[in-house]
Amino acid sequence: MRNFKLTIEYNGANFSGWQKQDGKRTVQGQIEEALKTVTGEDVTLNGSGRTDKGVHALGQVASVILESPITVEGLKRALNNILPEDVFVKKVEVADDNFHARFSAKRKTYQYVVQVGGDRSAVKNTTLTYFPYAVDLKKMEDAAALLIGKHNFKGFCSSGTTVKDFEREIFALSIKKRGRIFTFEVTGNGFLYNMVRIIVGTLLDVGREKLSLQDVKDALELGKRECAGQTMAACGLYLKKVEYLSEPN
Amino acid sequence: MRNFKLTIEYNGANFSGWQKQDGKRTVQGQIEEALKTVTGEDVTLNGSGRTDKGVHALGQVASVILESPITVEGLKRALNNILPEDVFVKKVEVADDNFHARFSAKRKTYQYVVQVGGDRSAVKNTTLTYFPYAVDLKKMEDAAALLIGKHNFKGFCSSGTTVKDFEREIFALSIKKRGRIFTFEVTGNGFLYNMVRIIVGTLLDVGREKLSLQDVKDALELGKRECAGQTMAACGLYLKKVEYLSEPN
Repeated sequence: MRNFKLTIEYNGANFSGWQKQDGKRTVQGQIEEALKTVTGEDVTLNGSGRTDKGVHALGQVASVILESPITVEGLKRALNNILPEDVFVKKVEVADDNFHARFSAKRKTYQYVVQVGGDRSAVKNTTLTYFPYAVDLKKMEDAAALLIGKHNFKGFCSSGTTVKDFEREIFALSIKKRGRIFTFEVTGNGFLYNMVRIIVGTLLDVGREKLSLQDVKDALELGKRECAGQTMAACGLYLKKVEYLSEPN
Repeated sequence: MRNFKLTIEYNGANFSGWQKQDGKRTVQGQIEEALKTVTGEDVTLNGSGRTDKGVHALGQVASVILESPITVEGLKRALNNILPEDVFVKKVEVADDNFHARFSAKRKTYQYVVQVGGDRSAVKNTTLTYFPYAVDLKKMEDAAALLIGKHNFKGFCSSGTTVKDFEREIFALSIKKRGRIFTFEVTGNGFLYNMVRIIVGTLLDVGREKLSLQDVKDALELGKRECAGQTMAACGLYLKKVEYLSEPN
């Protein structure tokens, strides 16, 4: 019996998110089915966290306990032969017995990709988000600096969450511009529901001068959702990387 | 009554191709429906040619005759407000009365995007094709050179076509490599059914040394489909540009 760690890429456009749900096409559901075909075992695959409908992953991590004597390379090949084209297992490793993709996670990095202005891209409609207004990069960077560190992020969280503790730490938050494409990258010890999408919406609203730096401070200090910006669409969001203790990077 | 020329981008992943078919989601069908909503007119939109299910366009051209007094900018804006996110009208122009997107076309340019080797990209599964074998760029360029010019392309055409004349002229055929991504670009006066996808499959098969330059010559001179390479998948193919007489570019 071994504990496996899987690193997974997927395009979220045609999935009802990560988490298994009856009658829905989900990433967890597809991989559990493929694991059953390969090993004959009915297992639960534990993801580092859910991703919503439409959200992509470049490096989602999941753990699963298997009885099968299959090699890591054999498991990777067999899964990818079965899995549909919008999901791919990039890496299979044998982990410590006490490794759990969710509970052992220390840092997560998300990317958010936005096209600012110009003609909406029909070809990339499921892999980036379109923002029709001109934005000021410097203003967005100033607002981003306010969010780095340990804060109460209640103002950057959608309602409907059962979470009680809203304190999270953001280690890094950068914005790269390449022509009309802006890529936001944020690394933290954990994220509240819709937190990345609200952070990016807030920074863009500061960039177009719909919100001020003071509004961002208010959202942080007063914990009021209405002080922060809009929740951006799922299609621009990528779970890039999940890091665990004693991993260099 | 004016004759309009539309330049259109779309992601083919969720369309049953360009051409209108009962009960199917098609690009022509979606745009004709949007035209009806905007102008109240039941019209036929004539594309420069069909694209198959899964094939994308960066610059498909279509023409349509409308009674409505709407401005070109007004028509562009109104259509894009209605159209779904995987289709976008990039340009609306008033054309000469005798302009017809199909019959007036002089040159078409297609792009084909392939990832060669490495891990299959799940995120880009509908916007490029994966080719698992290593290829030699120089060999592919030598084979490409054989195809440029006026030839009988019967060997590069899928069966099931009703075409009688297989002569076509290829003006340019280039291959750009950027890391693992190879972009094939081909310009010609017209293309037979699946011709671009078979040309790219043939070049890749030469690149991996499954076919020789002599096989390519045989496919051209003997007109035998079995001498040419495989038909590549639809998802890597983009109709990039359609050119008409007296257009500089």
